[in-house]
Amino acid sequence: MARALELARRGLYSTHPNPRVGCVIARDGEVVGEGWHVRAGEPHAEVHALRQAGERARGATAYVTLEPCSHFGRTPPCAEALVSAGVTRVVAAMQDPNPQVAGRGLERLRSVGIAVASGVLEDEARELNCGFVKRMETGLPYVRVKLAMSLDGRTAMASGESQWITGAAARAAVQRLRAQSSVVLTGADTVLMDQARLTVRGNELGLDTEQTALALGRPPLRVLVDGRCRVPLDAPFFQAGAALVATASFPGLDYLAAGHQCLSVSGEGGQVDLPALLRELAARGANEVLVEAGPRLAGAFAQQDLVDEYQIFVAGKFLGSSARPLLDLPLERMSEARELRIVDIRAVGEDWRIIAKPRSAV
Amino acid sequence: MARALELARRGLYSTHPNPRVGCVIARDGEVVGEGWHVRAGEPHAEVHALRQAGERARGATAYVTLEPCSHFGRTPPCAEALVSAGVTRVVAAMQDPNPQVAGRGLERLRSVGIAVASGVLEDEARELNCGFVKRMETGLPYVRVKLAMSLDGRTAMASGESQWITGAAARAAVQRLRAQSSVVLTGADTVLMDQARLTVRGNELGLDTEQTALALGRPPLRVLVDGRCRVPLDAPFFQAGAALVATASFPGLDYLAAGHQCLSVSGEGGQVDLPALLRELAARGANEVLVEAGPRLAGAFAQQDLVDEYQIFVAGKFLGSSARPLLDLPLERMSEARELRIVDIRAVGEDWRIIAKPRSAV
Repeated sequence: MARALELARRGLYSTHPNPRVGCVIARDGEVVGEGWHVRAGEPHAEVHALRQAGERARGATAYVTLEPCSHFGRTPPCAEALVSAGVTRVVAAMQDPNPQVAGRGLERLRSVGIAVASGVLEDEARELNCGFVKRMETGLPYVRVKLAMSLDGRTAMASGESQWITGAAARAAVQRLRAQSSVVLTGADTVLMDQARLTVRGNELGLDTEQTALALGRPPLRVLVDGRCRVPLDAPFFQAGAALVATASFPGLDYLAAGHQCLSVSGEGGQVDLPALLRELAARGANEVLVEAGPRLAGAFAQQDLVDEYQIFVAGKFLGSSARPLLDLPLERMSEARELRIVDIRAVGEDWRIIAKPRSAV
Repeated sequence: MARALELARRGLYSTHPNPRVGCVIARDGEVVGEGWHVRAGEPHAEVHALRQAGERARGATAYVTLEPCSHFGRTPPCAEALVSAGVTRVVAAMQDPNPQVAGRGLERLRSVGIAVASGVLEDEARELNCGFVKRMETGLPYVRVKLAMSLDGRTAMASGESQWITGAAARAAVQRLRAQSSVVLTGADTVLMDQARLTVRGNELGLDTEQTALALGRPPLRVLVDGRCRVPLDAPFFQAGAALVATASFPGLDYLAAGHQCLSVSGEGGQVDLPALLRELAARGANEVLVEAGPRLAGAFAQQDLVDEYQIFVAGKFLGSSARPLLDLPLERMSEARELRIVDIRAVGEDWRIIAKPRSAV
């Protein structure tokens, strides 16, 4: 199963909206077939592995990181393929997280006499598809907020002077975070002030040729939260390709004319309704959403408890007490403080990355 | 030498103003004597090790973490003791850092035909005595600033509500930092607002009985920076024992009457002259100074580039953007940012500790 998960990870940058899935087929202690799902619309992991195994699949055990599907989607059901191939045992890391189908694939296999087990390395399997799992279970995507700060928790000088707080290795890590996301979401402040494009750039990913090609073949949807449509169409963000604009007002037709999508989701006080936006993005197949925004928009996500994970890149410097805060998050009492669990801290080049999850979301 | 350093570390909480020193005597590949310096006025590491070795020291090699002394202090010179014992080879981790005596101990040994080497595990030896080394080389103590902050770089709510940001393990680590310091230094804000005493409390150290007893037998001098003598004598800080008050004005005689020491070191704008204070503390034998202060005083140390090391305890929570900053350090331009090198990050119970050193001081 560990090998199947390793295979599944090869799809980190290319399977969305589908989950990353790997499959290993073994007979008499020997691996006879391996496969992983590459991208939506193409064969699932099981099919690749069965093809490689051929006749040797008969009487073999299939290890899959996700319960084999039992329904016709864009490809025929994998459960049927396993049955036809004569596999006699199937071990899944986890059931299908969609409550409406969970267990049906395994049930189908069991009904024809195949031995079935589930729950092997389940935590790792869920982690690998945290976005897909959350979307299936709740109708919301997994929201990751990326922040870059100095050791004293500041993101930019009061003047706005900010770019390149962190080094090249941290920037490459952010590029990979973008590439694995279905959506990269930002706000008007960031796009206007930093001339940000939020694109995935192949030469900055630090991946091998195959993975780079896969990432570039399935770039994330870039979403701009711009309640009052402040960003002009000639901004680098719009020039860099088709994007989706979420507004709180009626968007101008010029966005559509220029090839962009629009979504009107108005909330309180003329702000974009972020929960509604997230639900809509999930409905469109977004598994993981990466928020790369300034303190105002990132703070709004924190304030509304919409964040599943913070990835904080920390540069070894003090920007001082006049500099801008990490998040606009005005709290008065200690009891309102947001409790987080720091799950990982490690060096990324000259900088450090802290991964923290809200305790409420854990 | 690694073993000698291990022995030296047993004196972490008790040797100041002396350095921590360990000694191992080996003959024919066998350890025949071990010793470490316990506290000032008592025998040096070499003497303990020679006593244990007895006659077996003849023809042996002595490994010492610091060049043996050649002068009469409160104890006779160790170089002579090594000569009398018949040691034929001496390996030192480092020379005596006092430029006026450096090399004389080794010279004395060489002059009587003993083989001499120096510079083995020198970095570790210097690190262990960073305060002693800095005081000898520069006339200033090693200044460590302890900070406790939330993940977004805040120390307290705007109201001042603050205590117990970090957990018990972090507080024990701070207790040990106090115990290893010659001086624990704080400001009037902290003493008035938090009712801080800055004492070493044996039951909170998390050390074994021997180390706890050593620490309590040699507590750090508590220094209060209080330019305008705002802290009343009935404050818990003064009630907890004798302290030193650094003022910018003429101190009242009541401090002295209550058993405290006073130091008038006035600088610009009615502030305490911090460099002058540090020089005076070093002159009195302070090796390591631990600054545990609020953002104003800690910020002043940062602003004046007086800090050798930051120990930042990070709690997994956000206190929000209205909360108090880590340091009062108003900077306008990115070029003024203080560059730091993060040398260590590790978990301390539920919290994390970041050790960072100013790049200028590295």
